[in-house]
Amino acid sequence: MQTIAYLGPPGTFSEEAALAYAAGRAGVNFLPLASMPAVVTAIETDAATVGVLPIENVLEGSVTNTLDLLIHETNLRIAGEIVVPIRQYLVARAGITLPEIKVLYAHPQSLGQCRKFVERCLPGVATVASLSNSAAPTEALADERPAAAISTLRAAELTGSHVLAREIADTQGNVTRFIVLAQHDAPPTGDDKTSFCFGFREDRAGTLVGALHELAADNINMTKLESRPAKAALGQYIFLVDINGHREDARVAAALKRIESRAGFLKLFGSYPCWKSRSF
Amino acid sequence: MQTIAYLGPPGTFSEEAALAYAAGRAGVNFLPLASMPAVVTAIETDAATVGVLPIENVLEGSVTNTLDLLIHETNLRIAGEIVVPIRQYLVARAGITLPEIKVLYAHPQSLGQCRKFVERCLPGVATVASLSNSAAPTEALADERPAAAISTLRAAELTGSHVLAREIADTQGNVTRFIVLAQHDAPPTGDDKTSFCFGFREDRAGTLVGALHELAADNINMTKLESRPAKAALGQYIFLVDINGHREDARVAAALKRIESRAGFLKLFGSYPCWKSRSF
Repeated sequence: MQTIAYLGPPGTFSEEAALAYAAGRAGVNFLPLASMPAVVTAIETDAATVGVLPIENVLEGSVTNTLDLLIHETNLRIAGEIVVPIRQYLVARAGITLPEIKVLYAHPQSLGQCRKFVERCLPGVATVASLSNSAAPTEALADERPAAAISTLRAAELTGSHVLAREIADTQGNVTRFIVLAQHDAPPTGDDKTSFCFGFREDRAGTLVGALHELAADNINMTKLESRPAKAALGQYIFLVDINGHREDARVAAALKRIESRAGFLKLFGSYPCWKSRSF
Repeated sequence: MQTIAYLGPPGTFSEEAALAYAAGRAGVNFLPLASMPAVVTAIETDAATVGVLPIENVLEGSVTNTLDLLIHETNLRIAGEIVVPIRQYLVARAGITLPEIKVLYAHPQSLGQCRKFVERCLPGVATVASLSNSAAPTEALADERPAAAISTLRAAELTGSHVLAREIADTQGNVTRFIVLAQHDAPPTGDDKTSFCFGFREDRAGTLVGALHELAADNINMTKLESRPAKAALGQYIFLVDINGHREDARVAAALKRIESRAGFLKLFGSYPCWKSRSF
C-alpha cells in the first residue's frame, strides 16, 4: 500500500499530479497536506511513501519553494517526474451568467495566466486573491454577491460549481512539471535524468564555466540550468542542473565527481526515468 | 524635471527604491502605477522619465515578471540599479495589543518571510492574503475585528497604523535589488555592470558552456546567471547574464559579439553603474 502526499486541498493541480502518479498502481492512498514542507516531512517520517511537488511551469518558470526545499531542507531523493497540463476554468454557482459577475476569486498566479480573458470578458470586475486554485471556487460560492472563480476542473466538480468558460488561459500548451520525492531515487531504465545542485566557495570568472565544461566535454546533455540565491549575500548563487543519464552511468558518475571537486559543494537530488505519459 | 514611475501604491518597497533614486536630485516627481507593465509603458510613452522595478531578492531570488518584461516586452534599457533593505513591521490600529489580534493581513511573500514570528507570536491567528505590503495595513484598519498587518514602515506611516513589532522577518539582511529603466542606458563610470540575455536555436550539449566560455576566456566576471523558460516548450530556456564592465569596453563588446554569433539570439539590456549606496 503506497501513500502519496501532495499539496492539498483536493482539487489542486498537485492532486492531478498525484492521480497521474497513481494511475495503474493498485492500493494507493492519498494524503493532502497544508504546505510543501509538510509533504517533505511526511515522506521523511514514513507518513507517506512518496510525495509530489511542482518544480517548473512552462510559462512561469521554476517553483522556487521546491528548489529551496531540495537545496536546504531535505535529503530525500527525486524518484520520478510527472508533467501535468494546466487548464483553467471560469466557474460560478449555477444560474450566474458572465455579464452578472461582480467579483472574481483567483490565485494570483492563475489570474496572471488568464489576464486576457479577464480583461476582455470580465472588464471592471473586482478581483480577490485566493490562497489556492481549489480555495477560489469555495470562496466564490460563499460570497453573497454574484461571484466567479478561476478554478481547476476537478475543484469545480468537488465544489459543485458550474463551468462558465473552459481553458481560459492566455496561452495554450501550459504544463507544469512535478517531481516525485521518496527515500530513494530510481534504478536505471535506459532513459533517465539526473538532478543535482552545486555551489562555489569563491566567486571568480570561469568557475561556473569550468564546472559545466565537465559535462560538455563528455557530451552529457544539460536539460536545465537554474540559479538560486545562496541566501548569504546578493551575488552568491547555487546552481541547479538536470542532465540526461543515470548517476550509475560511469560517464555521469565521473563528471559529477569532477564537478564536485571543482565546486567544493555538490548535492545529488537523484536519478529517475524521463516522463512519458503514463510510462513510469 | 524627472518623473519616476514605480509599482504603487505609495508605501511599497518599490516606493522606497524610487525615493532612494530621487535622493540628491532636485525637482523630482513620483508616479505610482498599478502594475509593472504600466511602469514600462509609462517610460516608453514619456509619461515618465525613468521607472524602478524589483529584479532580485536575496532570499526569494529573481522577480520573474521583471525578467520576462525585459526579455519579451520592451526595448527600454537598464540605466541603474538600487539595493533596498527589506524590513517588515507588524502594525495595527492604535490600542490593539499583540494577544488581542485575531486576523493578520499580509502579502503572501511577506507572510512567508515572517513565518517564525507569526508562528511564535501570533499562533492560531487567521491569515488573509493582501495584494501588496501597502494594501495590508489599509485592509487591517478597515476590519472590524482586532486585525494586524505585515507592512512596510512607510505604509504604516501613510495609513496612521501603530507599530507593534519591528523587523519581524526570519532572516536579517534581506535586501531587494531594483533596476532603473529608461530610454537609454548609462555612460561608463569605471565601475559598471552590463546585463543581457541570449538563447539558442538548438538544444545540444555544450552550447551554453561555449557561450559562457567567451566571457571566462577574457576574464570577464559573471555576477549573475539566471534561466527563464522560452515559453515554447518545457526544456527551452533563455539565459540572463550580468557581467562586470561596460558594453563600450572593447573586451566586453567583443565577447558580446562572439556570444551572439554562437547563440543566434542576444538582447542587450544595458550598461549602468554598480550600486553603492547613494552613489549614482
